[in-house]
Amino acid sequence: MAEQSQGPVARTVLQQCLSARLQVEPGEGGAEPRFVQIDRGMVIYVCFFKGATEDILPRMVSTLLNLRLCESSQGKMVSVLELPGSVLVVPQATLGGKAKGRGMQYHGNIGKEDGQRLYAAFVSRCEQELRAAGSELPLEHGTYGNRQVLKLDTNGPYTHLMEF
Amino acid sequence: MAEQSQGPVARTVLQQCLSARLQVEPGEGGAEPRFVQIDRGMVIYVCFFKGATEDILPRMVSTLLNLRLCESSQGKMVSVLELPGSVLVVPQATLGGKAKGRGMQYHGNIGKEDGQRLYAAFVSRCEQELRAAGSELPLEHGTYGNRQVLKLDTNGPYTHLMEF
Repeated sequence: MAEQSQGPVARTVLQQCLSARLQVEPGEGGAEPRFVQIDRGMVIYVCFFKGATEDILPRMVSTLLNLRLCESSQGKMVSVLELPGSVLVVPQATLGGKAKGRGMQYHGNIGKEDGQRLYAAFVSRCEQELRAAGSELPLEHGTYGNRQVLKLDTNGPYTHLMEF
Repeated sequence: MAEQSQGPVARTVLQQCLSARLQVEPGEGGAEPRFVQIDRGMVIYVCFFKGATEDILPRMVSTLLNLRLCESSQGKMVSVLELPGSVLVVPQATLGGKAKGRGMQYHGNIGKEDGQRLYAAFVSRCEQELRAAGSELPLEHGTYGNRQVLKLDTNGPYTHLMEF
Protein backbone atom coordinates (compact mmCIF):
# COMPACT_ATOMS: atom_id res chain seq x y z
CA MET A 1 0.00 0.00 0.00
CA ALA A 2 1.10 3.54 -0.62
CA GLU A 3 2.97 4.90 2.36
CA GLN A 4 2.86 8.56 3.18
CA SER A 5 6.25 10.00 2.50
CA GLN A 6 5.79 13.09 4.63
CA GLY A 7 4.24 14.14 7.86
CA PRO A 8 3.58 12.18 11.03
CA VAL A 9 1.91 8.74 11.04
CA ALA A 10 0.72 8.96 14.63
CA ARG A 11 -0.56 11.80 16.79
CA THR A 12 -0.80 11.68 20.56
CA VAL A 13 -2.07 14.11 23.17
CA LEU A 14 -0.82 13.60 26.73
CA GLN A 15 -2.45 14.80 29.92
CA GLN A 16 -1.40 14.08 33.44
CA CYS A 17 -4.15 13.22 35.88
CA LEU A 18 -4.90 12.61 39.53
CA SER A 19 -7.51 10.10 38.42
CA ALA A 20 -9.27 9.16 35.21
CA ARG A 21 -12.19 6.87 34.50
CA LEU A 22 -13.09 5.54 31.07
CA GLN A 23 -16.04 3.50 29.84
CA VAL A 24 -14.87 0.37 28.04
CA GLU A 25 -18.28 -1.24 27.48
CA PRO A 26 -21.47 0.74 27.02
CA GLY A 27 -24.47 -0.41 29.01
CA GLU A 28 -26.62 -2.15 26.43
CA GLY A 29 -29.64 -4.40 26.72
CA GLY A 30 -30.00 -3.83 30.44
CA ALA A 31 -26.31 -4.53 31.12
CA GLU A 32 -24.39 -2.08 33.29
CA PRO A 33 -21.69 -0.09 31.48
CA ARG A 34 -18.15 -1.20 32.37
CA PHE A 35 -15.40 1.24 33.32
CA VAL A 36 -11.67 1.18 33.96
CA GLN A 37 -9.95 3.66 36.23
CA ILE A 38 -6.46 4.86 37.02
CA ASP A 39 -5.21 7.06 39.81
CA ARG A 40 -2.25 9.36 39.40
CA GLY A 41 -0.57 9.10 36.02
CA MET A 42 -0.91 9.95 32.38
CA VAL A 43 -3.70 9.79 29.82
CA ILE A 44 -2.47 9.03 26.29
CA TYR A 45 -4.95 9.91 23.52
CA VAL A 46 -3.74 8.20 20.36
CA CYS A 47 -4.59 8.34 16.65
CA PHE A 48 -2.81 6.55 13.80
CA PHE A 49 -2.66 7.91 10.26
CA LYS A 50 -2.44 6.14 6.93
CA GLY A 51 1.04 4.72 6.47
CA ALA A 52 1.58 3.89 10.16
CA THR A 53 3.13 0.48 10.81
CA GLU A 54 4.33 -1.42 13.85
CA ASP A 55 7.85 -0.18 13.11
CA ILE A 56 7.08 3.11 14.83
CA LEU A 57 5.85 1.55 18.07
CA PRO A 58 9.18 0.92 19.87
CA ARG A 59 10.32 4.55 19.55
CA MET A 60 6.83 5.91 20.10
CA VAL A 61 6.13 4.00 23.32
CA SER A 62 9.63 4.54 24.68
CA THR A 63 9.36 8.28 24.02
CA LEU A 64 5.93 8.66 25.61
CA LEU A 65 6.79 6.71 28.75
CA ASN A 66 10.23 8.29 29.23
CA LEU A 67 9.61 11.94 28.36
CA ARG A 68 9.37 14.21 31.38
CA LEU A 69 5.71 15.17 31.02
CA CYS A 70 4.53 14.69 34.61
CA GLU A 71 5.08 16.69 37.76
CA SER A 72 6.29 14.85 40.83
CA SER A 73 5.00 15.71 44.29
CA GLN A 74 8.26 17.67 44.73
CA GLY A 75 7.34 19.82 41.73
CA LYS A 76 9.99 18.28 39.47
CA MET A 77 9.17 17.24 35.90
CA VAL A 78 9.58 13.49 35.58
CA SER A 79 8.41 10.73 33.25
CA VAL A 80 5.34 8.66 34.02
CA LEU A 81 7.71 5.74 34.70
CA GLU A 82 9.68 7.82 37.20
CA LEU A 83 6.57 9.29 38.85
CA PRO A 84 5.70 6.36 39.10
CA GLY A 85 2.26 6.63 37.58
CA SER A 86 -0.41 4.63 35.87
CA VAL A 87 -1.28 4.95 32.19
CA LEU A 88 -4.67 5.21 30.51
CA VAL A 89 -4.64 4.81 26.73
CA VAL A 90 -7.60 6.34 24.91
CA PRO A 91 -8.09 5.65 21.18
CA GLN A 92 -9.05 9.01 19.70
CA ALA A 93 -9.64 9.01 15.96
CA THR A 94 -10.91 12.60 16.11
CA LEU A 95 -7.27 13.71 16.58
CA GLY A 96 -6.79 13.02 12.86
CA GLY A 97 -9.45 15.54 11.88
CA LYS A 98 -8.89 18.28 9.32
CA ALA A 99 -11.29 21.14 8.82
CA LYS A 100 -13.04 21.38 5.48
CA GLY A 101 -15.43 24.28 5.56
CA ARG A 102 -17.26 23.97 8.87
CA GLY A 103 -17.07 20.19 8.92
CA MET A 104 -14.28 17.86 9.98
CA GLN A 105 -12.83 15.18 7.72
CA TYR A 106 -10.79 12.18 8.78
CA HIS A 107 -9.43 11.02 5.44
CA GLY A 108 -5.85 10.82 6.73
CA ASN A 109 -6.74 8.28 9.43
CA ILE A 110 -5.66 4.69 9.16
CA GLY A 111 -8.27 2.12 8.11
CA LYS A 112 -10.31 0.37 10.78
CA GLU A 113 -8.62 -3.04 10.77
CA ASP A 114 -5.05 -1.74 10.59
CA GLY A 115 -5.94 0.82 13.24
CA GLN A 116 -7.35 -1.80 15.57
CA ARG A 117 -4.27 -4.00 15.16
CA LEU A 118 -1.83 -1.11 15.70
CA TYR A 119 -3.79 0.10 18.71
CA ALA A 120 -3.68 -3.35 20.31
CA ALA A 121 0.06 -3.58 19.63
CA PHE A 122 0.59 -0.10 21.06
CA VAL A 123 -1.26 -0.96 24.27
CA SER A 124 0.58 -4.25 24.60
CA ARG A 125 3.96 -2.54 24.13
CA CYS A 126 3.09 0.11 26.75
CA GLU A 127 2.24 -2.70 29.15
CA GLN A 128 5.55 -4.46 28.40
CA GLU A 129 7.62 -1.31 28.94
CA LEU A 130 5.83 -0.54 32.18
CA ARG A 131 6.58 -4.04 33.44
CA ALA A 132 10.16 -3.97 32.13
CA ALA A 133 10.69 -0.78 34.13
CA GLY A 134 9.54 -2.63 37.24
CA SER A 135 6.22 -0.82 37.55
CA GLU A 136 3.32 -2.72 39.05
CA LEU A 137 0.91 0.14 38.45
CA PRO A 138 -2.02 -0.47 36.15
CA LEU A 139 -2.14 0.23 32.46
CA GLU A 140 -5.73 0.60 31.34
CA HIS A 141 -7.13 1.31 27.91
CA GLY A 142 -10.28 2.11 26.02
CA THR A 143 -12.06 -0.04 23.46
CA TYR A 144 -11.07 0.84 19.90
CA GLY A 145 -13.97 2.24 17.91
CA ASN A 146 -16.19 2.92 20.92
CA ARG A 147 -17.32 6.22 22.32
CA GLN A 148 -14.72 7.18 24.94
CA VAL A 149 -16.82 8.27 27.91
CA LEU A 150 -14.09 9.86 30.01
CA LYS A 151 -13.93 11.58 33.37
CA LEU A 152 -10.71 13.30 34.31
CA ASP A 153 -9.45 14.94 37.47
CA THR A 154 -6.17 16.85 37.27
CA ASN A 155 -3.86 19.04 39.26
CA GLY A 156 -3.01 20.74 35.96
CA PRO A 157 -3.25 18.56 32.83
CA TYR A 158 0.03 19.83 31.33
CA THR A 159 -1.38 18.98 27.90
CA HIS A 160 1.34 18.01 25.41
CA LEU A 161 1.21 17.08 21.74
CA MET A 162 3.64 14.48 20.37
CA GLU A 163 3.69 13.30 16.80
CA PHE A 164 5.64 10.38 15.35
CA MET B 1 10.82 41.53 15.92
CA ALA B 2 11.59 38.48 13.87
CA GLU B 3 8.39 36.79 12.82
CA GLN B 4 8.29 33.09 12.14
CA SER B 5 7.84 32.66 8.45
CA GLN B 6 6.64 29.08 8.62
CA GLY B 7 4.49 26.88 10.75
CA PRO B 8 1.53 27.71 12.94
CA VAL B 9 1.52 30.60 15.41
CA ALA B 10 -1.20 29.14 17.62
CA ARG B 11 -2.09 25.61 18.69
CA THR B 12 -5.41 24.61 20.20
CA VAL B 13 -6.78 21.34 21.52
CA LEU B 14 -10.56 21.06 21.74
CA GLN B 15 -12.56 18.71 23.92
CA GLN B 16 -16.28 18.57 24.37
CA CYS B 17 -17.56 18.17 27.90
CA LEU B 18 -20.65 17.56 29.96
CA SER B 19 -19.11 19.73 32.64
CA ALA B 20 -15.71 21.20 33.41
CA ARG B 21 -14.35 22.99 36.45
CA LEU B 22 -11.17 25.04 36.50
CA GLN B 23 -9.29 26.74 39.31
CA VAL B 24 -8.74 30.42 38.57
CA GLU B 25 -7.20 31.44 41.90
CA PRO B 26 -5.14 29.11 44.06
CA GLY B 27 -6.00 29.05 47.73
CA GLU B 28 -3.18 31.01 49.31
CA GLY B 29 -2.69 32.49 52.73
CA GLY B 30 -5.78 30.82 54.15
CA ALA B 31 -8.00 31.97 51.27
CA GLU B 32 -10.21 29.43 49.56
CA PRO B 33 -9.25 28.59 45.96
CA ARG B 34 -11.66 30.05 43.41
CA PHE B 35 -13.11 27.99 40.55
CA VAL B 36 -15.17 28.59 37.43
CA GLN B 37 -17.40 25.94 35.92
CA ILE B 38 -19.27 25.27 32.72
CA ASP B 39 -21.86 22.63 31.92
CA ARG B 40 -22.22 21.15 28.46
CA GLY B 41 -19.91 22.68 25.89
CA MET B 42 -16.32 22.85 24.75
CA VAL B 43 -12.94 23.21 26.44
CA ILE B 44 -10.39 25.15 24.37
CA TYR B 45 -6.75 24.65 25.43
CA VAL B 46 -4.73 27.39 23.77
CA CYS B 47 -1.03 28.15 23.25
CA PHE B 48 0.48 30.98 21.21
CA PHE B 49 3.86 30.74 19.51
CA LYS B 50 6.44 33.40 18.71
CA GLY B 51 5.21 35.51 15.83
CA ALA B 52 1.52 35.35 16.81
CA THR B 53 -0.32 38.66 16.60
CA GLU B 54 -3.90 39.81 17.08
CA ASP B 55 -4.40 39.54 13.32
CA ILE B 56 -5.01 35.82 13.65
CA LEU B 57 -7.74 36.11 16.28
CA PRO B 58 -10.79 36.82 14.08
CA ARG B 59 -10.25 33.74 11.92
CA MET B 60 -9.11 31.63 14.84
CA VAL B 61 -12.09 32.37 17.08
CA SER B 62 -14.60 32.15 14.25
CA THR B 63 -13.17 28.77 13.20
CA LEU B 64 -13.18 27.30 16.71
CA LEU B 65 -16.71 28.40 17.53
CA ASN B 66 -18.20 27.44 14.16
CA LEU B 67 -16.48 24.14 13.38
CA ARG B 68 -18.66 21.09 13.97
CA LEU B 69 -16.70 19.62 16.87
CA CYS B 70 -19.56 18.80 19.26
CA GLU B 71 -22.22 16.13 19.23
CA SER B 72 -25.83 17.22 19.68
CA SER B 73 -28.25 15.17 21.77
CA GLN B 74 -29.56 13.82 18.43
CA GLY B 75 -26.07 12.50 17.64
CA LYS B 76 -25.39 15.09 14.93
CA MET B 77 -22.08 16.94 14.78
CA VAL B 78 -22.66 20.64 15.38
CA SER B 79 -20.63 23.65 16.44
CA VAL B 80 -20.51 24.80 20.05
CA LEU B 81 -22.61 27.80 18.97
CA GLU B 82 -25.23 25.51 17.44
CA LEU B 83 -25.23 23.08 20.37
CA PRO B 84 -25.65 25.57 22.08
CA GLY B 85 -22.87 25.10 24.58
CA SER B 86 -20.66 26.96 26.98
CA VAL B 87 -16.96 27.53 26.43
CA LEU B 88 -14.05 27.12 28.84
CA VAL B 89 -10.75 28.60 27.67
CA VAL B 90 -7.64 27.09 29.29
CA PRO B 91 -4.23 28.70 28.68
CA GLN B 92 -1.87 25.80 28.09
CA ALA B 93 1.72 26.74 27.38
CA THR B 94 2.77 23.08 27.54
CA LEU B 95 1.13 22.61 24.12
CA GLY B 96 4.14 24.39 22.66
CA GLY B 97 6.56 21.80 24.00
CA LYS B 98 9.14 20.04 21.86
CA ALA B 99 11.09 17.04 23.03
CA LYS B 100 14.83 17.43 23.41
CA GLY B 101 16.26 14.22 24.75
CA ARG B 102 13.95 13.24 27.60
CA GLY B 103 13.09 16.81 28.52
CA MET B 104 10.60 19.24 27.02
CA GLN B 105 11.55 22.68 25.72
CA TYR B 106 9.22 25.58 25.12
CA HIS B 107 11.48 27.89 23.10
CA GLY B 108 8.84 28.40 20.39
CA ASN B 109 6.30 29.84 22.80
CA ILE B 110 5.43 33.50 22.75
CA GLY B 111 6.90 35.72 25.50
CA LYS B 112 4.97 36.21 28.70
CA GLU B 113 3.66 39.74 28.16
CA ASP B 114 2.67 39.25 24.53
CA GLY B 115 1.12 35.92 25.48
CA GLN B 116 -0.92 37.46 28.25
CA ARG B 117 -2.18 40.22 25.98
CA LEU B 118 -3.08 37.81 23.15
CA TYR B 119 -4.77 35.44 25.57
CA ALA B 120 -6.93 38.25 26.98
CA ALA B 121 -7.84 39.38 23.46
CA PHE B 122 -8.65 35.79 22.47
CA VAL B 123 -10.99 35.34 25.45
CA SER B 124 -12.62 38.68 24.82
CA ARG B 125 -13.22 37.86 21.17
CA CYS B 126 -14.71 34.46 22.06
CA GLU B 127 -17.08 36.25 24.42
CA GLN B 128 -18.05 38.75 21.69
CA GLU B 129 -18.74 36.03 19.12
CA LEU B 130 -20.81 34.04 21.59
CA ARG B 131 -22.93 37.13 22.33
CA ALA B 132 -23.14 38.11 18.65
CA ALA B 133 -24.52 34.64 17.94
CA GLY B 134 -27.23 35.27 20.53
CA SER B 135 -25.83 32.84 23.11
CA GLU B 136 -26.43 33.65 26.75
CA LEU B 137 -24.38 30.68 27.91
CA PRO B 138 -21.27 31.36 29.96
CA LEU B 139 -17.76 31.72 28.64
CA GLU B 140 -15.26 31.00 31.38
CA HIS B 141 -11.48 31.05 31.29
CA GLY B 142 -8.40 30.23 33.26
CA THR B 143 -5.81 32.64 34.63
CA TYR B 144 -2.82 33.02 32.29
CA GLY B 145 0.39 31.72 33.84
CA ASN B 146 -1.33 29.80 36.65
CA ARG B 147 -1.51 26.08 37.20
CA GLN B 148 -4.71 24.94 35.47
CA VAL B 149 -6.33 22.67 38.04
CA LEU B 150 -9.00 21.10 35.83
CA LYS B 151 -11.76 18.56 36.32
CA LEU B 152 -13.53 17.29 33.25
CA ASP B 153 -16.57 15.10 32.70
CA THR B 154 -17.31 14.00 29.15
CA ASN B 155 -19.58 11.81 27.13
CA GLY B 156 -16.62 11.31 24.78
CA PRO B 157 -14.13 14.20 24.57
CA TYR B 158 -13.84 14.05 20.74
CA THR B 159 -10.37 15.57 21.11
CA HIS B 160 -9.39 17.69 18.11
CA LEU B 161 -6.22 19.59 17.27
CA MET B 162 -6.45 22.87 15.36
CA GLU B 163 -3.48 25.03 14.46
CA PHE B 164 -3.51 28.55 13.06
